[in-house]
Amino acid sequence: MKIVIVGGVAGGASAAARARRLSEEAEIIMVERGSYPSFANCGMPYYIGGTIESRNKLLVSPIERLRQRYQLDVRVRESVESIDRANKQIVIRRLETGEQYTESYDKLILAPGAAPFRPPIPGIESPGIYTLRNLEDADRLAAATKGAQRAVVIGAGFIGIEMAENLVHRGLQTSLVELSPQILPPWDAEMVAPLEQLLRDRGVDLYLGDSATEFRPKDNGLQVVMNSGKTLAADFVVLAIGVRPESTLAADADLKVAQRGGIQVNRQQQTSDPDIYAVGDAIEVTDVVSGTPVQIPLAGPANRQGRIAADHIFGRDLEYRGTQGTAIVGLWDHGAAMTGLSEKACQRLGLEYEKVYLHPGDHAGYYPGATSMAVKVLFDPETGKLLGGQVVGKHGIDKRVDVLSMALQAGMSVFDLEESELAYAPQFGSAKDPINMAGFIAAGVLRGDQPVAHSKDLIDGEFEDAVLLDVRTPEEYAAGAIPGSVNVPLDELRDKLDSLPQGKPVVAYCKVGQRGYMATRILLLAGYQARNLSGGYTTYQQVVAASDA
Amino acid sequence: MKIVIVGGVAGGASAAARARRLSEEAEIIMVERGSYPSFANCGMPYYIGGTIESRNKLLVSPIERLRQRYQLDVRVRESVESIDRANKQIVIRRLETGEQYTESYDKLILAPGAAPFRPPIPGIESPGIYTLRNLEDADRLAAATKGAQRAVVIGAGFIGIEMAENLVHRGLQTSLVELSPQILPPWDAEMVAPLEQLLRDRGVDLYLGDSATEFRPKDNGLQVVMNSGKTLAADFVVLAIGVRPESTLAADADLKVAQRGGIQVNRQQQTSDPDIYAVGDAIEVTDVVSGTPVQIPLAGPANRQGRIAADHIFGRDLEYRGTQGTAIVGLWDHGAAMTGLSEKACQRLGLEYEKVYLHPGDHAGYYPGATSMAVKVLFDPETGKLLGGQVVGKHGIDKRVDVLSMALQAGMSVFDLEESELAYAPQFGSAKDPINMAGFIAAGVLRGDQPVAHSKDLIDGEFEDAVLLDVRTPEEYAAGAIPGSVNVPLDELRDKLDSLPQGKPVVAYCKVGQRGYMATRILLLAGYQARNLSGGYTTYQQVVAASDA
Repeated sequence: MKIVIVGGVAGGASAAARARRLSEEAEIIMVERGSYPSFANCGMPYYIGGTIESRNKLLVSPIERLRQRYQLDVRVRESVESIDRANKQIVIRRLETGEQYTESYDKLILAPGAAPFRPPIPGIESPGIYTLRNLEDADRLAAATKGAQRAVVIGAGFIGIEMAENLVHRGLQTSLVELSPQILPPWDAEMVAPLEQLLRDRGVDLYLGDSATEFRPKDNGLQVVMNSGKTLAADFVVLAIGVRPESTLAADADLKVAQRGGIQVNRQQQTSDPDIYAVGDAIEVTDVVSGTPVQIPLAGPANRQGRIAADHIFGRDLEYRGTQGTAIVGLWDHGAAMTGLSEKACQRLGLEYEKVYLHPGDHAGYYPGATSMAVKVLFDPETGKLLGGQVVGKHGIDKRVDVLSMALQAGMSVFDLEESELAYAPQFGSAKDPINMAGFIAAGVLRGDQPVAHSKDLIDGEFEDAVLLDVRTPEEYAAGAIPGSVNVPLDELRDKLDSLPQGKPVVAYCKVGQRGYMATRILLLAGYQARNLSGGYTTYQQVVAASDA
Repeated sequence: MKIVIVGGVAGGASAAARARRLSEEAEIIMVERGSYPSFANCGMPYYIGGTIESRNKLLVSPIERLRQRYQLDVRVRESVESIDRANKQIVIRRLETGEQYTESYDKLILAPGAAPFRPPIPGIESPGIYTLRNLEDADRLAAATKGAQRAVVIGAGFIGIEMAENLVHRGLQTSLVELSPQILPPWDAEMVAPLEQLLRDRGVDLYLGDSATEFRPKDNGLQVVMNSGKTLAADFVVLAIGVRPESTLAADADLKVAQRGGIQVNRQQQTSDPDIYAVGDAIEVTDVVSGTPVQIPLAGPANRQGRIAADHIFGRDLEYRGTQGTAIVGLWDHGAAMTGLSEKACQRLGLEYEKVYLHPGDHAGYYPGATSMAVKVLFDPETGKLLGGQVVGKHGIDKRVDVLSMALQAGMSVFDLEESELAYAPQFGSAKDPINMAGFIAAGVLRGDQPVAHSKDLIDGEFEDAVLLDVRTPEEYAAGAIPGSVNVPLDELRDKLDSLPQGKPVVAYCKVGQRGYMATRILLLAGYQARNLSGGYTTYQQVVAASDA
């Protein structure tokens, strides 16, 4: 058995290691265009920023270990140019000499990854415009930060915001430009609004809804001309506007490639040629929740796909189950996490959904150090089946999104979240964990116990006829409230019910939704048509911030 | 509807709040023996230790709020003495005056909790012997620490080890005495061995497999006489040897009570009298994994049971699904977490099980600050269905046990853990999360890819015929190795296969099991009968430490 693997990071490296564990006899050739297979690409921004001090740390499996321990024929700085499927051969080019040679295969695994997108705009080839894909890129960027004072990052996805943070760590005046009206486009806008504020608070100049239209070389730097007409001066530019699956090799070999560019594979990771597998960022995957084909570049799925491809080559019939899109990104001591579908994705797919917001503490409020997080859970309005979840905050966001991810994997509903038994001690959680609370609230919506109103709809005028009832304290109300609201503190509500106009619907709200819930119950039981503003004034402020962007 | 609730903490408080949310008309009486309903009992050790500085923090829902917001008739310092089921009346005693009166009910909810056990040994009633159940107890203990120098804690369960830590915080020379040969009896001994060492490292004198047989009052203190004959001098003693469900009231009313003392209820929390419900630490619950009745006092389940009881009273038919035993306890910056069955529990129940150990990092090793955790996963040897999991370490243990808890709730198998999609960024996890790794290893065992040997069996002589192969580096081997092992570093193994005696089974091991796995694959593929020592030398050392106790 002769296996050739194209690409040595994540999916490719996992496939190679797995193949060796299944066969000592197999000849396994790994062809890697860069100088380093199996490096920690997710660590590069932190190496550039200095959090990861040693470059060696990024070399997860040094090339010598791959050769010795896994008996891999590792060929770096070589690029696969073409596939001759009929003769089961590939043409490989040595990048340093340009020399080409052919190599045969029994099974070919394509793990070429995805390439940073470079839009065809004037000046894009100017010096000082960097992308970040491999260790050589990281070295170049790390060198560029030395002595530099101003940088512009184009694109506020994962890598863009990580780079912005790390350039601030390096002391650079950093601008961040994003075409969308929000950072981190996979999330819903209102959920990441607090992180936009955090970026600004830490000194990043954030330009949302804008884009670079031209790069003009200047003395020792560049001028970035933007669509808005603004110009930014920079010593260098980081382009981080997304990646494109590297599927040219596959397409040239007439393997099936999707319209978005991803190589199409079956559940055993086989392409349209059963002797050719593809894994990782270059392929199209199936979204577990919606069943639709998507392009989601993530390291975890890539690793699992690599294992499955190797397993199948050696006669094992595991299946890749699809991708949920579980992701997390840190930003200083904050972060954003998500799994499954966002509200935007639900809308794009035309799915019926309901949603709830909450702002629980990461652990018991009576134990020091508790911080609050913003949680949004999307679910089917008929069955309560989970569709997705987003968690943004300081502590414990990774835990809650992983719990939601397991619930999604299991096909659970919000009624299951009510009954989840999660570990509680005051340092670690609450007797009613944020996940339980999300379940209680969502199930309450579905059971009719707690009809909710949403801030977006409120702002859009959907509740114009309603009494907007702020049930917080007069002090809270005075410090800032929703325009048009009247203040009746929760503990006075029963006595002041008569002051509310009968026959008018009521939208109650408090800071995060807890007191609003109790107010809603009192009103419903008194015969009012009442709703609780989901997530309270806190979510309202996030929605306003997202609308203002 | 007139509802009387006996007990105002956790389950009782949840039932009361839920009942009020379902009815504004219901008369809801809460009878609480202590002075404070709805206080944070899990925070008491940290209040005594000073981490929680203000006692007010422990008053989760102040009595005035319960009265005002929830319109509860809260009666503190009153005790329910008897139930007259025929007439639906109870007798209540006012603790301060001794005066008794009767109160009628339509529905009665028993949430009396569990009382600290005081064993009938000589001197148990001496002054200076404290238990910790309510806020008055916490006040007494906090007062006792003032000016004290030496304390003895009897019992090393949750409260015992939390108290030991907090007494050390207060500067006391602290002894901890536990009848079992291990701390934290719900866990398996080898898993908590590192925490025993931590207690010793922090200055706690730990006496395992010993118990108090007599307390002798001495000048300004006590002498604790132990079963071993040792004596300990103490200014005061904390008794934390477990709790007993408070079921006398129920038993006296001829409600069904289990042999272990828990009040028996159905899935709607009704006792054998359908107008009387019981919730929380006083009841017997069904273990979700084994289906057996158990006594598991935990705050999360108590809260959920309280909601379900109130729901049922108002005609809703939710069901309590049983308890998994998900628990966590902190110890300085470390902790232990578990869900489902321990190995001990599997053995006690006569269940077939397999297990794996691993020692993954809490996040990517290339990002600063990663620490390793010990993970043990138990599963059905036929189907791979999860039976339980334990996680001990510094960071990220709560997350991994919550993920395992969700997997248990969903009835997942180790094959599902392989495919779990968990959030990865280098600060938060790994592309192959500890949960995935546990799945890979366990599934590998079930598929025969990675037969494992266990340290306990090795120590017990089960692999006496085998070659014990240490595949670590010579430096690691020289620093400490399993007696009788031979050292062949992994990267030399292929070349030295001939030096291994053919026909003899091989048990390979490394530090944590990763290199041992690769060695096992090489050996298996070369025709040897090979096993990997699960968890490697690290687990071996934990097992030895647990055996030495």
